[in-house]
Amino acid sequence: MTVLFLQKPSGIWNEELPWLRSHYPDVTFTHDENPDPETLKSVEVIVSPRVSQEIVDAAPNLKAILLPMTGITHFPLETIKARGIRLGNSHGNSAGVAERAVAMILAFYGKIIEYHNDLKEHRWHGFWIGRGLDDTWECIQEKRVAVIGAGEIGHFSARYLKAFDCTVTGFKRTPVDTLPPYYDSMVYDIDEAIDGAEIVVVTLPSTNETRGMIDAARLERMRGALLVNVGRGDVIDEEALFNACRDGVLRGAA
Amino acid sequence: MTVLFLQKPSGIWNEELPWLRSHYPDVTFTHDENPDPETLKSVEVIVSPRVSQEIVDAAPNLKAILLPMTGITHFPLETIKARGIRLGNSHGNSAGVAERAVAMILAFYGKIIEYHNDLKEHRWHGFWIGRGLDDTWECIQEKRVAVIGAGEIGHFSARYLKAFDCTVTGFKRTPVDTLPPYYDSMVYDIDEAIDGAEIVVVTLPSTNETRGMIDAARLERMRGALLVNVGRGDVIDEEALFNACRDGVLRGAA
Repeated sequence: MTVLFLQKPSGIWNEELPWLRSHYPDVTFTHDENPDPETLKSVEVIVSPRVSQEIVDAAPNLKAILLPMTGITHFPLETIKARGIRLGNSHGNSAGVAERAVAMILAFYGKIIEYHNDLKEHRWHGFWIGRGLDDTWECIQEKRVAVIGAGEIGHFSARYLKAFDCTVTGFKRTPVDTLPPYYDSMVYDIDEAIDGAEIVVVTLPSTNETRGMIDAARLERMRGALLVNVGRGDVIDEEALFNACRDGVLRGAA
Repeated sequence: MTVLFLQKPSGIWNEELPWLRSHYPDVTFTHDENPDPETLKSVEVIVSPRVSQEIVDAAPNLKAILLPMTGITHFPLETIKARGIRLGNSHGNSAGVAERAVAMILAFYGKIIEYHNDLKEHRWHGFWIGRGLDDTWECIQEKRVAVIGAGEIGHFSARYLKAFDCTVTGFKRTPVDTLPPYYDSMVYDIDEAIDGAEIVVVTLPSTNETRGMIDAARLERMRGALLVNVGRGDVIDEEALFNACRDGVLRGAA
């Protein structure tokens, strides 16, 4: 079997490849950014964040594509589906992406940037210098959070936010039998998830169904909320987002 | 019984005082920033973040002082101890203070301020624009954390950081029989806690024992770590901290 890397294997691959080679001596691990037709004929697995229609067409034995990151916009999905080629990733980045969402939420409510900038200009936000409570940052404790897209990133987002006693509502397309851990509730209507949320975390992939899903009307439904998108950018209507930020519909966006 | 507020009751007190008054009709809740000797004679409880020696001396029936925040530096501790007056707070701020520590940790490793400033100048830190992995922010997943002062703030710090799969070592003066939740280990030697920690969270109060506890030698032991102090400022030797920041001993300080 031949496993082809279409990109030069980066740091972690170079650490793991010797192990893989010694444990799977029958497998050829090879790297070729411009594979010739002869190579492609024998390839059964491709590791790459993007694979063209031409390459898939030239690889008759292709059985699986491993995506060493996230995002499915750079693959000929129709062909992949029609030929039964498996396309997947390890979700290895989910915890980190969710951490990013939480870091941005805490920075926003915690006024990390404002305080940093003020401190650089010798302004200290102390409780005792007369500005009082109104000047202070805000805790996220017990805030109502909607996690739009209750997949792997959503799982970790819910887990981290639950540690801060947030109320976490998940939105998912496919109903679940049992409520996944860290969620307070799971809903299957995106608007139901958004209504009343103080923080909206979007983790959705870009698909025909999700593209532009967060439109002007939904942003209006989020009035006063903080919107954090760690999913794909085009899930949110960019112009509507710009308007919502400019007009103060959203409390913040990241 | 008379409960005296030495400061004008702020927002939350004004919300709760009607309830307290209706539930404790025998108790007089009063507010006086400059109480006269006659008032002080009958006072049994004082609510204030600072009480002078003169006031304690003039209040022979004083049984308790409630501190509506944190910090015990503004009380005549000798007299309070000698007379058996109870001094306490509700630890109501612990979750919020711990949240602050985590917000600063995530902002630091997440390069929140750097990315924000770059974005303001139209520099986008994307994976795909050629800067590659070296330019990226860092996750706190699985980092080794020392919580110096495993009290209430420490409890919440450990809880939040454990959600991110950090390894959390607590330092406490008084040995515990059972390991408190969220800690991986508890040690009673501060240097043992510091050694090997990538993040040091200090939550200590200011006492004769803790003042200057984090000195130049201990900062040197933290070489390469991020130090976050949400305890009292004078627990850390300020000049030593300045030097450690200037000389790159610490990776960061907040």
